[in-house]
Amino acid sequence: MIQPSNLSPGKRKDRVPAEEVLKRSMGPLPASKKIFVKGERHADVRVPMREIEQSPTRSPLPNQPEEANPPIVLYDTSGPYSDPAVQIDVLAGLAPVREKWIEARGDTVKLDRLSSAYGQRRLEDQKLDALRFGHLRTPRRAKSGANVTQLHYARKGQITPEMEYVAIRENLLRVQRPELLKQLWRRGKGAVHKGESFGARIPDEVTPEFVREEIAAGRAIIPANINHPEIEPMIIGRNFLVKINANIGNSAVTSTIEEEVEKMVWSIRWGADTVMDLSTGQNIHETREWIVRNSPVPIGTVPIYQALEKVDGKAEELTWELYRDTLIEQAEQGVDYFTIHAGVLLRYIPLTARRVTGIVSRGGSILAKWCLSHHKENFLYTKFDEICEIMKAYDVSFSLGDGLRPGSIADANDAAQFGELATLGELTQRAWAHDCQVMIEGPGHVPLQLIKENMDKQLAETFEAPFYTLGPLTTDIAPGYDHLTSAIGAANIGWYGTAMLCYVTPKEHLGLPDREDVKEGVIAYKIAAHAADLAKGFPGAQLRDDALSKARFEFRWEDQFNLSLDPETARAYHDATLPQDGAKTAHFCSMCGPNFCSMKITEDVRAYAKALGIGEEDALAQGLEAKSKEFREKGAEIYQAEPAGD
Amino acid sequence: MIQPSNLSPGKRKDRVPAEEVLKRSMGPLPASKKIFVKGERHADVRVPMREIEQSPTRSPLPNQPEEANPPIVLYDTSGPYSDPAVQIDVLAGLAPVREKWIEARGDTVKLDRLSSAYGQRRLEDQKLDALRFGHLRTPRRAKSGANVTQLHYARKGQITPEMEYVAIRENLLRVQRPELLKQLWRRGKGAVHKGESFGARIPDEVTPEFVREEIAAGRAIIPANINHPEIEPMIIGRNFLVKINANIGNSAVTSTIEEEVEKMVWSIRWGADTVMDLSTGQNIHETREWIVRNSPVPIGTVPIYQALEKVDGKAEELTWELYRDTLIEQAEQGVDYFTIHAGVLLRYIPLTARRVTGIVSRGGSILAKWCLSHHKENFLYTKFDEICEIMKAYDVSFSLGDGLRPGSIADANDAAQFGELATLGELTQRAWAHDCQVMIEGPGHVPLQLIKENMDKQLAETFEAPFYTLGPLTTDIAPGYDHLTSAIGAANIGWYGTAMLCYVTPKEHLGLPDREDVKEGVIAYKIAAHAADLAKGFPGAQLRDDALSKARFEFRWEDQFNLSLDPETARAYHDATLPQDGAKTAHFCSMCGPNFCSMKITEDVRAYAKALGIGEEDALAQGLEAKSKEFREKGAEIYQAEPAGD
Repeated sequence: MIQPSNLSPGKRKDRVPAEEVLKRSMGPLPASKKIFVKGERHADVRVPMREIEQSPTRSPLPNQPEEANPPIVLYDTSGPYSDPAVQIDVLAGLAPVREKWIEARGDTVKLDRLSSAYGQRRLEDQKLDALRFGHLRTPRRAKSGANVTQLHYARKGQITPEMEYVAIRENLLRVQRPELLKQLWRRGKGAVHKGESFGARIPDEVTPEFVREEIAAGRAIIPANINHPEIEPMIIGRNFLVKINANIGNSAVTSTIEEEVEKMVWSIRWGADTVMDLSTGQNIHETREWIVRNSPVPIGTVPIYQALEKVDGKAEELTWELYRDTLIEQAEQGVDYFTIHAGVLLRYIPLTARRVTGIVSRGGSILAKWCLSHHKENFLYTKFDEICEIMKAYDVSFSLGDGLRPGSIADANDAAQFGELATLGELTQRAWAHDCQVMIEGPGHVPLQLIKENMDKQLAETFEAPFYTLGPLTTDIAPGYDHLTSAIGAANIGWYGTAMLCYVTPKEHLGLPDREDVKEGVIAYKIAAHAADLAKGFPGAQLRDDALSKARFEFRWEDQFNLSLDPETARAYHDATLPQDGAKTAHFCSMCGPNFCSMKITEDVRAYAKALGIGEEDALAQGLEAKSKEFREKGAEIYQAEPAGD
Repeated sequence: MIQPSNLSPGKRKDRVPAEEVLKRSMGPLPASKKIFVKGERHADVRVPMREIEQSPTRSPLPNQPEEANPPIVLYDTSGPYSDPAVQIDVLAGLAPVREKWIEARGDTVKLDRLSSAYGQRRLEDQKLDALRFGHLRTPRRAKSGANVTQLHYARKGQITPEMEYVAIRENLLRVQRPELLKQLWRRGKGAVHKGESFGARIPDEVTPEFVREEIAAGRAIIPANINHPEIEPMIIGRNFLVKINANIGNSAVTSTIEEEVEKMVWSIRWGADTVMDLSTGQNIHETREWIVRNSPVPIGTVPIYQALEKVDGKAEELTWELYRDTLIEQAEQGVDYFTIHAGVLLRYIPLTARRVTGIVSRGGSILAKWCLSHHKENFLYTKFDEICEIMKAYDVSFSLGDGLRPGSIADANDAAQFGELATLGELTQRAWAHDCQVMIEGPGHVPLQLIKENMDKQLAETFEAPFYTLGPLTTDIAPGYDHLTSAIGAANIGWYGTAMLCYVTPKEHLGLPDREDVKEGVIAYKIAAHAADLAKGFPGAQLRDDALSKARFEFRWEDQFNLSLDPETARAYHDATLPQDGAKTAHFCSMCGPNFCSMKITEDVRAYAKALGIGEEDALAQGLEAKSKEFREKGAEIYQAEPAGD
């Protein structure tokens, strides 16, 4: 696909049409279509959502009419790839939907050439022509003295199209709720549970003004580099739906450009809200261009990885100039957030010496090595204000890295980790002084009982900047299953207030994730994020659960599959036991067999309740409790007076 | 294997030697051997444990001696199947290790024949000879007027061999801890975290007397039918390690006897502490005999399932006499605990009418149907004292079923569920009046923020009887991944105090689990249970994590695999990226490549810390904090005075 990469010399393949390779990651999900909700303030804001059609409910009673079930509208991360109306051309990249908004603000200039010396050298290197993305756009940066961050606009009171966009996107379920519930609850009616949000501020309706306020307060960010006009804006903050990030990236040992781009498309198909490109091999400059140009979600990177490549892996040879050039190189390609390990201070490093697993963050250990080699303070810390100047010229968001995060249960919540966190708080304020957007990275490996302390400290010490955690893994004993050990931690820390969860795949600690691992990781984290959303009590979050459970109860197998996070797997598992087509409409399932079905028996209960005057109609809903109480009193009399049983 | 089943007419296979079929589920796990710890009070108590050998640590410095790493001893559920010294003969069943203990108590009689009419009929049916287990033992029951439950003995102050057995078994990690830690922590030293046990009583040492007290108080049970002398006793209670149960069982649609026995062996290999046989097809009497005779773990059943088979699936035709005969039939086969849905009272049934998913428990819906058909109170409730008489004659433990558990997030924590729970509390006291052992079943589907209420209510309303929950699933939207949605809930409720977690497989809601699903479910639940053990702060629970993380940090790949919950998968995932043998001893891993390894860099940090006088020796351990503080103060001076960076 795309262009053959030369990562595997001697294995250059002929050029394959992009449509061909991406086909397996493209097209609508089952029974789903793309709908768009238009902005009110900004006419060209057009927010895509996924609408899932449902089949009608067939009454168990004879000669009853079918009851329609409403379509369910979901948050959609998959971008134009799932829209059959869009002609995808990976060679050209996605349409730059934000371009006009950026242009209209009038605070940027189009540059004549790349500002980064390295970027310029790569561009001039004709050997790379075969690898290069073909439709390079001239980069944009802030006009001299201007600040183009969403935080800057928010503080000025300006509601950008990006803000309206995310307001509509987040608000989705709340808007459609009353009408859907009315249709959904004709028969059964579940409780809409009160959430426990631990102090989060969750409004009934997400307005553009609410979004602006949250961004202005630093409690949320919209990662949206002015050089990444292709994105469908999204927001990361404790008072918004919990997001997930998927990591992709080659390494010195394996993988090609082609695989990386496809992993991005694949991971957003299953629900990744942002993607981090953690490539460390050759050609990462060119790989990144392909990914960014084709990505509708924000892209994050760890620039120190590439900087290290440029000095052949010798951490001690890193310099501020080299790193600075790397930041600019990537900012001009359109990377939306940078992990920057500016909190790895020299004084914290010896605190890790007696840890069981030392420093496990790659970025953290690179900087530790640099600090030790030079006997100097971390240059990311000493040059932090200069970094802020770059970030605000492109609106790259900070993801302040936790280079000293624990790599094992034993090392959780120790002095090194919390020392660094306090420094991240200091840096947050410094970044905010530049109107830079900031989120804070968190661990790692933490046992269940110590997770909340991480959240509480993060909120307090970094002033409610959004928290972005890796898991955490709740035990070390299950390599091969760390998507699961960490989904447990992620669900909990998401519930407590983490804004974005960085996924972990089954290959964590063991090898590089392949396509299936990426999907496993994304689904595990969608589960964790959704469990957290339910627990926090987001209005409407339960709607998908309710619709799916109703479908399950009514033996609408197709609807159950279609509403699930992974329709393909749900269907395949069902078919493994009962592959016949008839079994998908049959009023029994493979677990119990035709004569013995708990859901079938429940129909009798409803008839019984109805006979007692505890009906199924909405009109009788209010009477249920009273009727039931009356019945209990009467019932107790009847059944205790009579010798029961035989 | 075993005997060909006639479940699939026309598909009878020739007899296959049992050893042949079980081979794939047998033999020691990698680097593991079986060791035995002997009792002090009872000389023939011999508790098996699994000892994992470790390779030595090679110093990163040249010409340094290797440092030995201690073997790690783990709780072992796998029974004699993982012991190469035992000749397994499935046709003969396992050795009856408890037989002498039961005999010695002198309170039981060997019966001449089966007491159950149905059991007797099956025995006399020559058509079943080919299916039947070949070495049937004459059943045993309590002498007239005697009570043979562990609770009865405990209340009399008697410490049985079973109690000493579980004390040794539970105590495992605590006994070996000081010496192991000394060896393990020569280099790094992680924190042993303080747990949060929410009021559980977790002693530093588990003594036989502590076990007796917990059983006498009803806070723990040892499921141990006098007709199941083959078991290696285990304990279920909030103040003991969190246990997991795996369900196996055919249904009307699929599966054979052979597969069921093998699923049992397979599930205990990966860590199931008990196994429930939920078969619903034909020949479940014979299937059960095979399973019980070959099971070293307690077997649970839901007798109403078989009772329903006997009336061809017509719930309304169930009678107390038929059910009673089924209880006796199964008790004399050796089933260790019965799920009994005696809390499904007529007055609670209409409370489910407007639920989204009605009654989803099979047992619950059978009884609801019976109650509605007869307009009578649940006969399990009205005959409860007669049931207790049977339970105490064989020491079958009650698992009081939650027939009205919620089947969806919407239905969680509702009036029907909590009404039933209150009745289970009443029944617990009635069972305890008979000295019957009791645990309480719990949900189901519960969002994160409502899980703790389940635990708190259960403790309060059922007087701290052990809680045994199914998950709970924390969202409904992921069929195909419900092992994971529920492992999140299970880890949390286990942390809060649930004593045993009933696993959920990826096929939940979709179909019957196969061999791989059983393993996935067991591993997911071992993770949840262990995460809960860590969080509760069980002394020594962290040892396996620490040993594995140390192995990971030191690039002892083989040790990392061997210490993991699933060595096969960990190894396979590693080999998928770096299959060469050398890669398993290389000081780098596939994630970062040879030049770029965070763990390698950490070695420099240690050298640096050592140079600063923050050494790695144990002697210096106490000085670390002080040194580090001194360094921070000095460091701050040095590095801020000097312009850092370039």
